[in-house]
Amino acid sequence: MEELKQRILRDGKLSEGSIVKVGSFLNHSMDIHLFNNMGKELKKRFETEEITKILTIEASGIGIAAIASQYFNFVPVVFAKKFPATNMDKGTYEAKVHSYTKNTTYNVRVGKDYISKEDKVLIIDDFLANGCAALGLIDIVRQAEAEVVGFAAVIEKGFQMGRKVIEDENVRVEALAIIEKIEDNKIYFK
Amino acid sequence: MEELKQRILRDGKLSEGSIVKVGSFLNHSMDIHLFNNMGKELKKRFETEEITKILTIEASGIGIAAIASQYFNFVPVVFAKKFPATNMDKGTYEAKVHSYTKNTTYNVRVGKDYISKEDKVLIIDDFLANGCAALGLIDIVRQAEAEVVGFAAVIEKGFQMGRKVIEDENVRVEALAIIEKIEDNKIYFK
Repeated sequence: MEELKQRILRDGKLSEGSIVKVGSFLNHSMDIHLFNNMGKELKKRFETEEITKILTIEASGIGIAAIASQYFNFVPVVFAKKFPATNMDKGTYEAKVHSYTKNTTYNVRVGKDYISKEDKVLIIDDFLANGCAALGLIDIVRQAEAEVVGFAAVIEKGFQMGRKVIEDENVRVEALAIIEKIEDNKIYFK
Repeated sequence: MEELKQRILRDGKLSEGSIVKVGSFLNHSMDIHLFNNMGKELKKRFETEEITKILTIEASGIGIAAIASQYFNFVPVVFAKKFPATNMDKGTYEAKVHSYTKNTTYNVRVGKDYISKEDKVLIIDDFLANGCAALGLIDIVRQAEAEVVGFAAVIEKGFQMGRKVIEDENVRVEALAIIEKIEDNKIYFK
């Protein structure tokens, strides 16, 4: 998606360990006009698919998924929780997710009431890197005996394993911008 | 807002300590059609105000604020972070927030780049109870020397101190549904 790539080049900041900081428009301050264009693009990519629910993960995926839902007939958006909450429903599907950047493993949870086995679920997240969070979300959808229609990321780090890991689960992967490499403080798209 | 009240009565679940669980449409599974109607209603309430930015707090406020932005000329939505993140920008405004339900104090943070002193900020959150989170967000806006135009909650627990606490800061409060009391497992709106 050209608009997104240009925005990453213009406003993204690189830091150690191939971290691309896009807080100024994607995951801290959110450009809702851009999010709408991302939603339209996601709809185009999944045009022929029936989707009854969007699943994402707190916190950065929520805004993107909420806006995207408007292009998918306003299907409900469920976000998996990373942190224990007092208002959490009791019956939950849970999956373990390993975070390489933080070197910890955490649980993600979704209330059992919110995914049913009739659901056809599109999973949306801001980043795809090693695919660990995606795997956890796929696991949760399958625990609910629902179908994973696809996984869509805004930015994919094409030099990491995420895409392969997800495709090995027989899940289709779409990314709106794929970073092929980062060299000499410069981003190269695929 | 009548649609919201009816939805709370129909789908809200009460649990101990006057906790109203609205995970099925507000803060775990999100009804994006309802969110759009909430956004329209918020615009009506702040029709005459100039707003240049919306501030919310992860995670439950994000979806509501993202959708609402569409009715406020797509102003940027910034969400305060509750949890340390590796992709966090270095310079941040911080405020301490006490959580009565969890009996802990945590920090909320906003990158300094994302609120400027010219900003006129509408703060949006899902719940208003004791007002602690709201106070933290107001504090952050004022650290940035920006103006707080108002605080808007989807659901206010009118029997708690939140409204008074915020109004004492000379900030206007709006809530889309105000619960006056919860008695015999029944919700009464104001």
